[in-house]
Amino acid sequence: MSVLETLPATLYFEDFEVGMVFTSPTRTTLSEADIIAFAQQHDPQPFHTDPIAAKTTFFDGLAASGWQTALVAMRQFVDMLAHRVAGGLIGMSIDQLRWPRPTRPGDTLQASVEILGKKASRSKAGFGSIQLRWVVHNQHGELAMSLENSIWLPCRPQS
Amino acid sequence: MSVLETLPATLYFEDFEVGMVFTSPTRTTLSEADIIAFAQQHDPQPFHTDPIAAKTTFFDGLAASGWQTALVAMRQFVDMLAHRVAGGLIGMSIDQLRWPRPTRPGDTLQASVEILGKKASRSKAGFGSIQLRWVVHNQHGELAMSLENSIWLPCRPQS
Repeated sequence: MSVLETLPATLYFEDFEVGMVFTSPTRTTLSEADIIAFAQQHDPQPFHTDPIAAKTTFFDGLAASGWQTALVAMRQFVDMLAHRVAGGLIGMSIDQLRWPRPTRPGDTLQASVEILGKKASRSKAGFGSIQLRWVVHNQHGELAMSLENSIWLPCRPQS
Repeated sequence: MSVLETLPATLYFEDFEVGMVFTSPTRTTLSEADIIAFAQQHDPQPFHTDPIAAKTTFFDGLAASGWQTALVAMRQFVDMLAHRVAGGLIGMSIDQLRWPRPTRPGDTLQASVEILGKKASRSKAGFGSIQLRWVVHNQHGELAMSLENSIWLPCRPQS
């Protein structure tokens, strides 16, 4: 049973505890066409848009924009968690974003997030922040991306 | 005259100096439809997808996903700089990504990047890294996003 199944339907700051890990129940596969379409719009460099030209670049073949790997993780994060959090999850910051290896055509990605810390807000009553570490693995179990992130979320209303 | 006009047509590691600032010659305006379309795909939370529901959230109205503000900057960065760099710009890391204020429907964004540091690679001959600070301002001159970023790029071939 995943941690999410043990938690209330609507989640507040108080429901999150340091050490909890949430792993996306869905995986996302990026085709060559997905990689090229994303890069043509947002990051049009030859190693992201042109499979032939990519062979003579640093990446030695087509690689997804690192932003696309990040957005796959964001979407999985929203789908598994954010829609259950009252008021949504409000991103404050991202640090230590790294891509240890490129995402290639056909790779299947799965994100997990771990709660590293939490604190009640001193500046905004009724809100707290949690500190998260995201990791994204590919189908070989290799780390494709990691980052640390702080988000705001509401506290449970006093009844 | 911008710094870019004083540099060679094809750029290598050696052409970048600490303190140089590159400002995008183009600006990007995000409409309400742009914000909703992006968020529906990548970050489907009500404050990014639903102008009515957004009014009762933390953001007090529709706000762009922070990832969309980042991708506007990425595209401007590629258009002004990356296509002139031999081999392209290879992202290694991002740190200190912050969004001091939300991007709203109709906001017009413009990115600048400043060279904070540079060093030749010890692990990969013929490459160097430069450390950049990105800032994104809106049409009011307000800071919408900032980050620090390290990228790889090739050194000029020995002739």
